[in-house]
Amino acid sequence: MKKVAVILAGCGVYDGAEINEAVLTLLHIAKAGARYQCFAPDIEQLHTINHLTGEEMTPNRNVLVEAARIARGEIKAITELNVNEFDALIIPGGFGAAKNLSDFAVKGADAQVQDDVLHACTAFVKANKAAGYMCIAPAMLPLIYGQGVKTTIGNDQDTAAAIQQLGGDHQYCAVDDIVVDEQHKVVTTPAYMLAQSILEADAGIEKLVSKVLELA
Amino acid sequence: MKKVAVILAGCGVYDGAEINEAVLTLLHIAKAGARYQCFAPDIEQLHTINHLTGEEMTPNRNVLVEAARIARGEIKAITELNVNEFDALIIPGGFGAAKNLSDFAVKGADAQVQDDVLHACTAFVKANKAAGYMCIAPAMLPLIYGQGVKTTIGNDQDTAAAIQQLGGDHQYCAVDDIVVDEQHKVVTTPAYMLAQSILEADAGIEKLVSKVLELA
Repeated sequence: MKKVAVILAGCGVYDGAEINEAVLTLLHIAKAGARYQCFAPDIEQLHTINHLTGEEMTPNRNVLVEAARIARGEIKAITELNVNEFDALIIPGGFGAAKNLSDFAVKGADAQVQDDVLHACTAFVKANKAAGYMCIAPAMLPLIYGQGVKTTIGNDQDTAAAIQQLGGDHQYCAVDDIVVDEQHKVVTTPAYMLAQSILEADAGIEKLVSKVLELA
Repeated sequence: MKKVAVILAGCGVYDGAEINEAVLTLLHIAKAGARYQCFAPDIEQLHTINHLTGEEMTPNRNVLVEAARIARGEIKAITELNVNEFDALIIPGGFGAAKNLSDFAVKGADAQVQDDVLHACTAFVKANKAAGYMCIAPAMLPLIYGQGVKTTIGNDQDTAAAIQQLGGDHQYCAVDDIVVDEQHKVVTTPAYMLAQSILEADAGIEKLVSKVLELA
């Protein structure tokens, strides 16, 4: 039975992991007969957004503590992620991927990936193990895989341009489709960068999980 | 196209709506070709639980504000729920159903349903419209439908006994099955009262949504 590490960026589209994307990822991993373990960095969020009003609220929250809500408490700090125990890695999106896992939302083409996240993701690269990144999370790929990695965030031109500046090879992609970099064994899908409904997000995520497990 | 009102009790299994149950409910409504609108009461939670440690944390949070995380901001206060605009009602579980939507977690057989929630749920009873309650949410049913309503929370004996004391007709039920009260048009399933995996929860929730839409 294949085992997938899932890295969550918090709990909520505007400051953490996109909840539908996270749950659908876990659902499709389980439906495919694989297992998962959730991880998150034990750090403060960039900020905490009231999802009803869109305004910042205080006090700020911790990424790992909030991500534990999605994982029903079954989650570990990302520093405990041992690549040898897993066949693949999947990172759902949500602004948390660009605010907590990296600073892409703030710095764009000057972005960096958070140290612990970079360490964990790079371990899968070095081990030549499959990975899947969805929504805005693929913006991190040039910083993890280096120049020329094929990736998609859908069709947002400014975001695609920033990914190109970071060294990525951005491909336009429909909401229900995936982009596969066979050489690097990395799969991406736009999810809620384009999805207008949970069904549209589900279609791309199901394909991504299936392809990641095939490459694993 | 049928339209379902979904009432959320917050965001997280230990103090709000169970996140997997909520997302799977929305997924299956959409897959069945129906639409949904999320609602939540604009009240403080009973308390806020750190889902990593299981301990209470401060400050406390608001049910509607936290539920907005699951709904991606597309949510309304439950006082805005007009039964005439909907064909059916579904309430996912999580401790929030017994801590925020009602006080069943604290008072058991002496429980009451929160006023705004009772008003909204009772409107569906009076209109003879279908409803689905999952996980611990069915404990509220005797207080909404009155004596003899058929309901299940799975097989927990203490919880079942409290529901019987409240006047419910509790039926033992497998995790992947549903209990249907045809007379009251109300469907229940154990979900994470019994589920050991997201697949087990998904099986019962899919059946519940399908049956609610059939009765709608």
